[in-house]
Amino acid sequence: MRHQTEALCRPLLPEDTVVQPMLDVSPPKWHLAHTTWFWETFLLKPYLPDYTVFHPDYAYLFNSYYNSLGSRVNRADRGTLSRPALQEVYAYREFVNTHMQQLLRQPGLLPEAARELVELGLQHEQQHQELLVTDIKYILSTSPLAPAYQPAAPAAPQAPAPPVSWLPVAGGLHRIGFEGQGFCFDNEQAPHDTYVADFELQNRLVTNSEYLEFMEAGGYRNFQYWLGEGWDLAQQQGWEAPLYWVLHHGTWHRFTHQGLQPVNLAAPVTHISFYEADAYAHWRGCRLPTEQEWEIAARRFQHDTTTGTFLESGLYDPQPLPADAPADQCHQLLGDAWEWTYSAYHPYPGYQRAAGALGEYNGKFMLNQLVLRGGSCATPESHIRLTYRNFFHADKRWQFTGIRLAR
Amino acid sequence: MRHQTEALCRPLLPEDTVVQPMLDVSPPKWHLAHTTWFWETFLLKPYLPDYTVFHPDYAYLFNSYYNSLGSRVNRADRGTLSRPALQEVYAYREFVNTHMQQLLRQPGLLPEAARELVELGLQHEQQHQELLVTDIKYILSTSPLAPAYQPAAPAAPQAPAPPVSWLPVAGGLHRIGFEGQGFCFDNEQAPHDTYVADFELQNRLVTNSEYLEFMEAGGYRNFQYWLGEGWDLAQQQGWEAPLYWVLHHGTWHRFTHQGLQPVNLAAPVTHISFYEADAYAHWRGCRLPTEQEWEIAARRFQHDTTTGTFLESGLYDPQPLPADAPADQCHQLLGDAWEWTYSAYHPYPGYQRAAGALGEYNGKFMLNQLVLRGGSCATPESHIRLTYRNFFHADKRWQFTGIRLAR
Amino acid sequence: MRHQTEALCRPLLPEDTVVQPMLDVSPPKWHLAHTTWFWETFLLKPYLPDYTVFHPDYAYLFNSYYNSLGSRVNRADRGTLSRPALQEVYAYREFVNTHMQQLLRQPGLLPEAARELVELGLQHEQQHQELLVTDIKYILSTSPLAPAYQPAAPAAPQAPAPPVSWLPVAGGLHRIGFEGQGFCFDNEQAPHDTYVADFELQNRLVTNSEYLEFMEAGGYRNFQYWLGEGWDLAQQQGWEAPLYWVLHHGTWHRFTHQGLQPVNLAAPVTHISFYEADAYAHWRGCRLPTEQEWEIAARRFQHDTTTGTFLESGLYDPQPLPADAPADQCHQLLGDAWEWTYSAYHPYPGYQRAAGALGEYNGKFMLNQLVLRGGSCATPESHIRLTYRNFFHADKRWQFTGIRLAR
Amino acid sequence: MRHQTEALCRPLLPEDTVVQPMLDVSPPKWHLAHTTWFWETFLLKPYLPDYTVFHPDYAYLFNSYYNSLGSRVNRADRGTLSRPALQEVYAYREFVNTHMQQLLRQPGLLPEAARELVELGLQHEQQHQELLVTDIKYILSTSPLAPAYQPAAPAAPQAPAPPVSWLPVAGGLHRIGFEGQGFCFDNEQAPHDTYVADFELQNRLVTNSEYLEFMEAGGYRNFQYWLGEGWDLAQQQGWEAPLYWVLHHGTWHRFTHQGLQPVNLAAPVTHISFYEADAYAHWRGCRLPTEQEWEIAARRFQHDTTTGTFLESGLYDPQPLPADAPADQCHQLLGDAWEWTYSAYHPYPGYQRAAGALGEYNGKFMLNQLVLRGGSCATPESHIRLTYRNFFHADKRWQFTGIRLAR
Repeated sequence: MRHQTEALCRPLLPEDTVVQPMLDVSPPKWHLAHTTWFWETFLLKPYLPDYTVFHPDYAYLFNSYYNSLGSRVNRADRGTLSRPALQEVYAYREFVNTHMQQLLRQPGLLPEAARELVELGLQHEQQHQELLVTDIKYILSTSPLAPAYQPAAPAAPQAPAPPVSWLPVAGGLHRIGFEGQGFCFDNEQAPHDTYVADFELQNRLVTNSEYLEFMEAGGYRNFQYWLGEGWDLAQQQGWEAPLYWVLHHGTWHRFTHQGLQPVNLAAPVTHISFYEADAYAHWRGCRLPTEQEWEIAARRFQHDTTTGTFLESGLYDPQPLPADAPADQCHQLLGDAWEWTYSAYHPYPGYQRAAGALGEYNGKFMLNQLVLRGGSCATPESHIRLTYRNFFHADKRWQFTGIRLAR
Repeated sequence: MRHQTEALCRPLLPEDTVVQPMLDVSPPKWHLAHTTWFWETFLLKPYLPDYTVFHPDYAYLFNSYYNSLGSRVNRADRGTLSRPALQEVYAYREFVNTHMQQLLRQPGLLPEAARELVELGLQHEQQHQELLVTDIKYILSTSPLAPAYQPAAPAAPQAPAPPVSWLPVAGGLHRIGFEGQGFCFDNEQAPHDTYVADFELQNRLVTNSEYLEFMEAGGYRNFQYWLGEGWDLAQQQGWEAPLYWVLHHGTWHRFTHQGLQPVNLAAPVTHISFYEADAYAHWRGCRLPTEQEWEIAARRFQHDTTTGTFLESGLYDPQPLPADAPADQCHQLLGDAWEWTYSAYHPYPGYQRAAGALGEYNGKFMLNQLVLRGGSCATPESHIRLTYRNFFHADKRWQFTGIRLAR
Repeated sequence: MRHQTEALCRPLLPEDTVVQPMLDVSPPKWHLAHTTWFWETFLLKPYLPDYTVFHPDYAYLFNSYYNSLGSRVNRADRGTLSRPALQEVYAYREFVNTHMQQLLRQPGLLPEAARELVELGLQHEQQHQELLVTDIKYILSTSPLAPAYQPAAPAAPQAPAPPVSWLPVAGGLHRIGFEGQGFCFDNEQAPHDTYVADFELQNRLVTNSEYLEFMEAGGYRNFQYWLGEGWDLAQQQGWEAPLYWVLHHGTWHRFTHQGLQPVNLAAPVTHISFYEADAYAHWRGCRLPTEQEWEIAARRFQHDTTTGTFLESGLYDPQPLPADAPADQCHQLLGDAWEWTYSAYHPYPGYQRAAGALGEYNGKFMLNQLVLRGGSCATPESHIRLTYRNFFHADKRWQFTGIRLAR
Repeated sequence: MRHQTEALCRPLLPEDTVVQPMLDVSPPKWHLAHTTWFWETFLLKPYLPDYTVFHPDYAYLFNSYYNSLGSRVNRADRGTLSRPALQEVYAYREFVNTHMQQLLRQPGLLPEAARELVELGLQHEQQHQELLVTDIKYILSTSPLAPAYQPAAPAAPQAPAPPVSWLPVAGGLHRIGFEGQGFCFDNEQAPHDTYVADFELQNRLVTNSEYLEFMEAGGYRNFQYWLGEGWDLAQQQGWEAPLYWVLHHGTWHRFTHQGLQPVNLAAPVTHISFYEADAYAHWRGCRLPTEQEWEIAARRFQHDTTTGTFLESGLYDPQPLPADAPADQCHQLLGDAWEWTYSAYHPYPGYQRAAGALGEYNGKFMLNQLVLRGGSCATPESHIRLTYRNFFHADKRWQFTGIRLAR
């Protein structure tokens, strides 16, 4: 599974793996090393006898945000470090992989209780695979040369998306949160009851075509649709369209992993902030769902849904829904684009932070961020599930974020 | 009712009414004028025939944040304007009061639908009366001279507060939100059902004595209790105690409206951020309530509660609970200190922004702030109610904010 | 002499004496107190037996920049302090004046060597009188009400200024720097020889009319005339005219101590930065003089010059030169407007910083500032002389700064 | 000559050529491309018939600061651009070199008047060679791995430097500025007379050993030696030693092109700001020379001086003076370390900016910077001369800057 991380970096030049054009983006070289540090720190050091770290300074260089594990490079400075070289980092990965195999093969080394750390290491690696996809896109986008990460695919059919339909969901007491077997993050715990009133949810993601109507109706110039903070930010940064959109000879194009491409009107809109999603909803006279509503609807419709686009497709772009997708099913629930909800990322009832460094994994971020649901075209398919709670600040646009309306 | 605003400013020097020592604080002169502008803008201009504004530039000078009403002085610059003079602002108030009386007296001028604007104007004025109390405190506190706004009262008895007790509340479906007669803000609408599990709530506010235990246990030096953002902020600003606390000859004192006074250990702790409230709760192994829990408990115990301290008392400081307060009642629900909840200030289900400028009153702030409940010693008693939703960012400390724990 | 300081503040409201609308401006209340602290610190405390300071906190509140004298209020925070009240500050002045009289009257208290401190105290007070004039102007200008500090004078005659003429000055070795009797600042010491080539200097200050030609020729839109830093700043701040200029019904007006007034085309241009002065000179194909050239020319023409406008006139505005001013004389050398020179404010050869706190008076500022010569309409006439070296950063515009060209 | 630029980059990894760890530093890849753009812009485009630019976006990407030549990448963003790839930039260099050879070989293409542009292109390239040496040092220094750019040389002998002696220079009228044949920059024009009084200059650069005395005497903790701006900066940034110095097991080490090395006490101190140089001089009771004094002394002693260290040595570090260097000669005038003077970088009398884009080369920077003289160990020997005026802001430390005292 870890080789997928390297595979994502293979099309890059060493130059691409070093830069950090904005604070949220980390250099690919850093991702490669940080995920490796995670294994070294949480498994090799505590459990492999006589393990010697690959390099004593790497704990300082590649710790992301764990106060429990000491001081570290300032996040804003990740893009100023040319060393260790990319080749050194690959050697680090191999070194750690070899020792991990040793640890896993030799019976008795890993106590039962620590087995879940292996699972966590894999899940953590998958999270960074998604970040690699989005960070690489941002890095390549900053050059006016608009370099392509992959060859352009044959143009997707521009058949219009099927008209949106509204799926009714009966209110009442519903159970949400992760239950059953398998892995989940601590923030999906504990399962609990929640009450919602009757509501309706759109059966697919909002398309570029629909979003363009908002733009053309002056959505970016009318403060009435916007939250106060969002309006101020949009003015200050001169937002007029989603991130990566540029007008090119009078036609809207978007920077993609295949360079600059015309906007596919039938595809889901993406790379929008929560502020834009909320303003769009206002303008339509609707609203964004809460995460409770989203999960309740998703559970209700999970068997009536088409398969979305995931990392494994290698497409790295939300795909249009086939024109014949049934109107009474709920589409694109998983994959394609993370769906902004109007729910704060707060602890679930009964949530407990783990002890030690891993208690910092999720819990300390539970303020001032919003929950997103459903995964995106950059999420590994095996990584996502209906109870998964992703979270970002309202102004973030560089992830594959999209909109599904409720009312 | 409006004369209460002037009364609060009477002990001030003209010099005190001009300055703005931090962004959240507005100069008292600005409060006096802005509340007047509110009446002029929303009532006199639309409804009083032939009304001529007191001064054409005041709409620019004293508009707070209404985009619908045009451009305005940058908030950060409120403290740079020495003119209009304080006396001019008093003349403005009188001018507008006189015309308001004219408008109210003469039948037929004010359509029925606009009557509620009068009520809103009064409520708005009361909100600024509370802000005057807190802003005056901050303004006077910045001087090393520690000037007193009012003469020192005889020292309150330092009898220890009664031990805290836990009040059990049965979970289930409960109705919250404003119902019935009388005024409420749009953000308390609409009443709706909510589900909570069984929980317990403390029967009084956390005291200075209890908070001091947290401080002495190293609460400000251990990141494990803190949210990530809160920890970074506390480090950066060097927080070691609530706002206004200073060690003076080895004893904790607090700046108050009566100058520097020793901390009364039995009184509720106040002037703490959400981050501190949450860290305190963590350290105690408890948590903060949600706003739903708070309101459900408050409705349950509203008849078994003592009266708290409000603006009208003139005390401007949370008061200790009598040592004989019954353990099975819930105290200090209203008054004394606003209680931080772990609930984001988001729209209630079914919430609709009003059309026009007043739609900006509450709705556009519904992100990245937290709900506080119950009013404080600076809130007019007639202004508060159990469904009232106040809101501030997590880092704010200059309001009379306090803690009540849940579990 | 000190009462002139109070006289300048008399037309102000208490509100006006508190605010600090930008970093360079200090509140008048602060000027009143700081000049008083100077006497207390450098004379009363060391030399008056048994002197007790007026208030122990004032040393912290009113020290401007003397590291030798301990910590102090951050300069940017001077406008956040409403206390001590204006009346308190006046009481402080009286207290110190009384004790100063005591000190001066009683023989033997003040050693001969300390006598010059009295002179320095007076000179320091005069410097702050000039700052009061310019700071009051800035403070009143920030209000859209454009309040007048003094009643409008009858409009000055708009007769055009006489055509400018060029005065030739022979080069060679010249002596500059203060010599002879009387007071001078340490930065005018020591007198020394300097060599300049032949040059010519304009016989009067550049007028508003001449400067308007630069503006109308696109001077603010063409980077070629500008220093790099100046161009960037002008773009960033949107400069299009001198400070205080506004287009009002299609005519250029300026904010003055008499409120908004039409620009008098014949009067010297003022309130321009060094960057603007230098760009103007470039555009004319000329240059600014060095301070050596200025002083050499001033000594040469000092007896052939008309009297300029000083603080004592109460006009607070540079005045037009009479149309019949002789072309072979050098006008407005002293008074009216400080003249930017293209000379860095560096130590003269042989300059020695004084020991102790007064060594911080001038010496530590000798970098990254430019020398200005000749005084302005806000300078007391008895304060200025031909060797006087004033200094400001190149971007400052709130002083009465003007232009005289050389070639 | 241009291949020297590539040679300097050869020991680097592609990763090293991309990053910009602080604003003053440019990525080596940018230097490689910008110097190439210079040839393309000023020679190939105007003079080579039918020349087509290598890539139309490079003018935007690699213009440094020429407003005349249109918009460009923000300086702070140079380190965010991974593309074009390093190999592309090398191809660009070869492309331009080939076309330059074509232009130079074919008679009649380059008018006589444009011949000096070729010389300017070479001089410009040399300036960037020096910057490459200093920028590479800074880039490698940011990693805790302290990577070496070149193998460690055998340790230089730690023989103490000869005692410093003072060389007297007679004052009077002296001629300075470039005269005679060969290339010079416009800022060295025009030659002119200047007057100085008698003075003395040290016969060698200040050594690490001497500077350490200043440090150990508390030089970094006593504001009295410092200019105001310098003191504030030193406090804010926590300066305690020159840039690159670290205490390692109780001994001072410096980061060098050979990794971390013990400080050689006999070598000249370097990597100090003007503020530190000036504070050192104060502490010694001396001062820094003016640029006039420096040039007068340098002309006087130019034939009695040893050869310094230049770029061509490949040492990239100032070297100790042999212990037997004669006391009556002036050493290290050229090479080793740029010598801070207390002279503002202002235009010489009679200086004229060139017309067009090259007028921006030097003239627009003539404010708020200080002149440095003599070149450093990173300067090509053929590039430096006694009249050469380098310039930096007073706070810069990443160049090889040093001290020679005057009195």
